Amino acid sequence: MSYFTEDNSAEIVNARMGADTDPRLREVMGALVKHLHAFAREVTLTQEEWDYAIGFLTKTGQMCSGERQEFILLSDVLGFSMLVDAINNRRPKGATENTVFGPFHVADAPIRAMGENITLDGKGESCLFEGRVLDLEGQPIENACIDVWADNADGFYDVQQPDIQPKWNNRGRFFTGANGRYSFRGIKPVSYPIPDDGPVGQMLGHLGRHPYRPAHVHYLITAPGYQKLVTHTFVGEDTYLESDAVFGVKRSLIAPYEPAEGGDTQWRSKFDFVLVPA
Amino acid sequence: MSYFTEDNSAEIVNARMGADTDPRLREVMGALVKHLHAFAREVTLTQEEWDYAIGFLTKTGQMCSGERQEFILLSDVLGFSMLVDAINNRRPKGATENTVFGPFHVADAPIRAMGENITLDGKGESCLFEGRVLDLEGQPIENACIDVWADNADGFYDVQQPDIQPKWNNRGRFFTGANGRYSFRGIKPVSYPIPDDGPVGQMLGHLGRHPYRPAHVHYLITAPGYQKLVTHTFVGEDTYLESDAVFGVKRSLIAPYEPAEGGDTQWRSKFDFVLVPA
Repeated sequence: MSYFTEDNSAEIVNARMGADTDPRLREVMGALVKHLHAFAREVTLTQEEWDYAIGFLTKTGQMCSGERQEFILLSDVLGFSMLVDAINNRRPKGATENTVFGPFHVADAPIRAMGENITLDGKGESCLFEGRVLDLEGQPIENACIDVWADNADGFYDVQQPDIQPKWNNRGRFFTGANGRYSFRGIKPVSYPIPDDGPVGQMLGHLGRHPYRPAHVHYLITAPGYQKLVTHTFVGEDTYLESDAVFGVKRSLIAPYEPAEGGDTQWRSKFDFVLVPA
Repeated sequence: MSYFTEDNSAEIVNARMGADTDPRLREVMGALVKHLHAFAREVTLTQEEWDYAIGFLTKTGQMCSGERQEFILLSDVLGFSMLVDAINNRRPKGATENTVFGPFHVADAPIRAMGENITLDGKGESCLFEGRVLDLEGQPIENACIDVWADNADGFYDVQQPDIQPKWNNRGRFFTGANGRYSFRGIKPVSYPIPDDGPVGQMLGHLGRHPYRPAHVHYLITAPGYQKLVTHTFVGEDTYLESDAVFGVKRSLIAPYEPAEGGDTQWRSKFDFVLVPA
């Protein structure tokens, strides 16, 4: 038996796990300890920095409430959420790419007819969203559910302003028919800051980073026999497109927004979603 | 400009830091992001495991209060606290080794005369502690302050039982004279569990680990012109000596405990502390 030293630290800690430990837990915790110790050694972390980190993590936990998840924000701004998303959603060429789910989805949004308007507060620049849900061979997918959610023209989701915005503002679910087509009316989305009045916002400040996300619309697309698709579409010319605070942008997810001449909306955005078999 | 991918994730996140970022912050955060991403990639962390981790960190933060620091416990049981202690307290051969400070020190304990008794609740097996504070050449150090604290015979520190134990029970400060000698009466310490009714205790359970620390006495020793020494002495035959929940044991810190034949205590423990010039 050897005691803990600076050199054998991770091995000693990991050797302590019991023989009956779940194999996957053993693998994950073993790797976590190894990498955390390698980090401390690499930067020769000082006692004062450790103290600061303990205080930061504590404040981050204590900022969390029913309406606020500061640890998800932390994971997001460190690119950790996007990495986990990428690792778990490797797709063949031609399939629509995944991106982060985010904290603002609400289950069971109203089911609407194709073409209906999801913007209930009358604010913003109106936009017709349309396109198809397809398989990898370009064939339409019937009975796909397109669950859409977005911020309003002031940059807030309805759940962030329950006393100001109508319930289900800029949200809805649409089911495709045999031709795989979808269409709905909403607004051209606007960029907004992630909540930055907590420890994570303070950290971004120290790192010289802004808290903004480029304008986007969220989609959760499901269809029988196909993998779930969690994604956004982004507005191409957005100021923050190359500096998304949570690293969610992928080039393939930038959608066209064109003036809708002759239509009943100011803008028109066409985007096809391509799903992978389950 | 390239967008985030599974392969370039850490580089993309770290490239986002502003030009004016403090160089040390840049170094520490850069390494942290690199190692966290390497961890997720190595184990192919699933979305469900990420969800679990977010919940675990949140509960850990929300368990913290004025009397409880669950994130320090987490750092302790992962060996991270001991590693930071080791990195920051590399000492020449012959010097007394450091170990973790722990959460139970209280500043400004009563200054007592050599030989006085620090055990105020009358519980436990009495023990005479004695020895010298020396420099690396074996010369006595005058005016060294020996700040000592320990749990009582029931395994609790006074601050954990403010309504049960007398204030300053098993605590005191002693100043050496020209001969560098110290002595005081207390009790032979007993092993105790770290607080295990929170998320960290639950984690230990999943890992097949017990929450016990082997019996020890804490010391904070300071002297003008010398490096601060934060350490424990341990009882040699303790059941948990080779499985300290926080990895604090070092072989050189195991002190002798001998029956004190003819003395006014049941036990006697001699230990010399050797300090390094500042």
